[in-house]
Amino acid sequence: MRTELCERLGIEHPIVGFSPSEHVVAALSRAGGFGVLGCVRFNEADELEEVLTWLDANTGGRPYGVDVVMPSHSPTEGAPTDLDKLIPAGHRDFVERTLLRLGVPPLGVDASRREGVLGWLHSVARSHVEVALNHPVRLIANALGPPPPDVIAQAHAHGLLVAALAGRADHARSHVTSGVDLVVAQGYEAGGHTGEIASMVLVPEVVDAVGESVPVLAAGGIGSGRQIAAALALGARGVWMGSVWLGTAEYQTPPALREALLKAGSSDTVRSRIYSGKPARLLRNRWTDAWSEAEAPAPLPMPLQNLLVSEAHTRLMESGDPTVVPMPVGQIVGRMNEVRPVADVLADLVAEADETLTRLGKLV
Amino acid sequence: MRTELCERLGIEHPIVGFSPSEHVVAALSRAGGFGVLGCVRFNEADELEEVLTWLDANTGGRPYGVDVVMPSHSPTEGAPTDLDKLIPAGHRDFVERTLLRLGVPPLGVDASRREGVLGWLHSVARSHVEVALNHPVRLIANALGPPPPDVIAQAHAHGLLVAALAGRADHARSHVTSGVDLVVAQGYEAGGHTGEIASMVLVPEVVDAVGESVPVLAAGGIGSGRQIAAALALGARGVWMGSVWLGTAEYQTPPALREALLKAGSSDTVRSRIYSGKPARLLRNRWTDAWSEAEAPAPLPMPLQNLLVSEAHTRLMESGDPTVVPMPVGQIVGRMNEVRPVADVLADLVAEADETLTRLGKLV
Repeated sequence: MRTELCERLGIEHPIVGFSPSEHVVAALSRAGGFGVLGCVRFNEADELEEVLTWLDANTGGRPYGVDVVMPSHSPTEGAPTDLDKLIPAGHRDFVERTLLRLGVPPLGVDASRREGVLGWLHSVARSHVEVALNHPVRLIANALGPPPPDVIAQAHAHGLLVAALAGRADHARSHVTSGVDLVVAQGYEAGGHTGEIASMVLVPEVVDAVGESVPVLAAGGIGSGRQIAAALALGARGVWMGSVWLGTAEYQTPPALREALLKAGSSDTVRSRIYSGKPARLLRNRWTDAWSEAEAPAPLPMPLQNLLVSEAHTRLMESGDPTVVPMPVGQIVGRMNEVRPVADVLADLVAEADETLTRLGKLV
Repeated sequence: MRTELCERLGIEHPIVGFSPSEHVVAALSRAGGFGVLGCVRFNEADELEEVLTWLDANTGGRPYGVDVVMPSHSPTEGAPTDLDKLIPAGHRDFVERTLLRLGVPPLGVDASRREGVLGWLHSVARSHVEVALNHPVRLIANALGPPPPDVIAQAHAHGLLVAALAGRADHARSHVTSGVDLVVAQGYEAGGHTGEIASMVLVPEVVDAVGESVPVLAAGGIGSGRQIAAALALGARGVWMGSVWLGTAEYQTPPALREALLKAGSSDTVRSRIYSGKPARLLRNRWTDAWSEAEAPAPLPMPLQNLLVSEAHTRLMESGDPTVVPMPVGQIVGRMNEVRPVADVLADLVAEADETLTRLGKLV
């Protein structure tokens, strides 16, 4: 299976894999796919610098990309301590009460207290871009809306491609007008931030909206070779996959999360604003259920909601209880039934896609 | 494009079209597809008898099917007058107040007052089956859950195939255990009654759950040849399409509805219980918006909700106002941009699917 995306990105298989784990990203690029590192977790530019240096040494000279988050409506800027003051006490009480009710212990004395994800502040995302430009990065993707014009210009000046995610055709069109080179059409079934339109409808709509010259990657609902072939049928030139790598050996999945992922079916996700303030698909569990009860407050806007739940996320994850882990994941979680190396997963995806394309060619 | 479904149903193209309109159904079967008549609108068996007699004379001897609605949890049985007593006064007040606020006039003196859809009562659906068995019907489909065992046995004794819709793999598996011959995997993006899992994820999951011997049709998000090819990539042996026929000449679409359908984009639908009491995807407009406001009551269970809104539906439709028409439709409504004959739509679907399959075969 080859499409022009392979030429454009210098890769063997038109499979782009997003992951916050540099180990997954390196394994993906080494295996002939294209790894994209999620940067939102790096509050400090230095941490990203260190990880990209590691990637440069571990991708075997194959291309890779980075994913930053610059929402089109900039969230309120500020230091964590200032932003903290904007969080209502009632919300804090609800979180504390809920953790108690779910039996989630407080943080141990040794626990590293994260100060919440600031990666979706424009100031922080810009610092990510600055760092990335000093590495042999092939692509910068923006997960929420088009990057600002000067960021696109800067990336282009360095010879990088720019991608942006879109959940609607009109957003995709405006990305292209802004100078974006590749559009990722992300359907309702995707993990993380996602819109209302399902991939089956969204992908061809975006393909038609942006025209022949802009390659579209399909995201959301892609976890097998048949789904890759379906994405190509819809007009995508490749796929963008995120959730599937959570179940790989390289992700170094904590045991509670692994157990939850292996157990979950395709019905066990929920689209909610409780993770970041914007609608995102998450693993459904006792924690997400608590937020849909009558007494639960409405989630706060980005970036306040994540600051609110940041320490709770650490406590939920460290509790070791698979029924409360806070985790963005798509509906393909139902397909994640064993832990395998990235290269094996990729090889199977390619083999099944090839087999499917051959089968389809014979139906005419 | 041919699959084994063509042999199984005796048709040219693996495209099954669902419509409440006998004119659409006849045109579909005549053109080499397979028309399935939605029966839920027939409160009296005699009306269905008359329509099937018309179909027998107008399908040119080609096969067709019927679709009945037998929810797996039987709705409360009863005559409309008895059931009416179960509707809270507050709900009636809300409907009346909302119609007034939306500027929807009362029914004219000549208007035929419908008594609400009773087709999803098992007693009424069984009367549909009785009528269908006396016509050369090739397939009986059940839109909500598997038909009762005796209905399946009766259909099989008459040489009919039985199909059932499923929004989850476990439902599909239980349909097959009940003796269902074909499963329609209906994704989140579909019009009418629908579940939470999108087609991209649902279709291969259902295909794997029911095994090789049971053909799966993909429903939800199918409105073009590329989407048909994608469904085949996912392992479906054919497609089940409903919404697309609302935009055909044969549907005899009322002008207000036509205007609303042509104008709507893929974001202009909503999944709600206000139509029937069970979640169904509808055209989003001022009427559906009113039900998501804070003061709106929770929809009633099936069949009470439809009895509640039945006269309102007639008034909304007869108002001639495109911003209030009550209409189940899928996210592919964004593709409905002109009114064309069924045969032309079908020919284009087949041509685009063939072209796509040929293109895909060359990617390997």
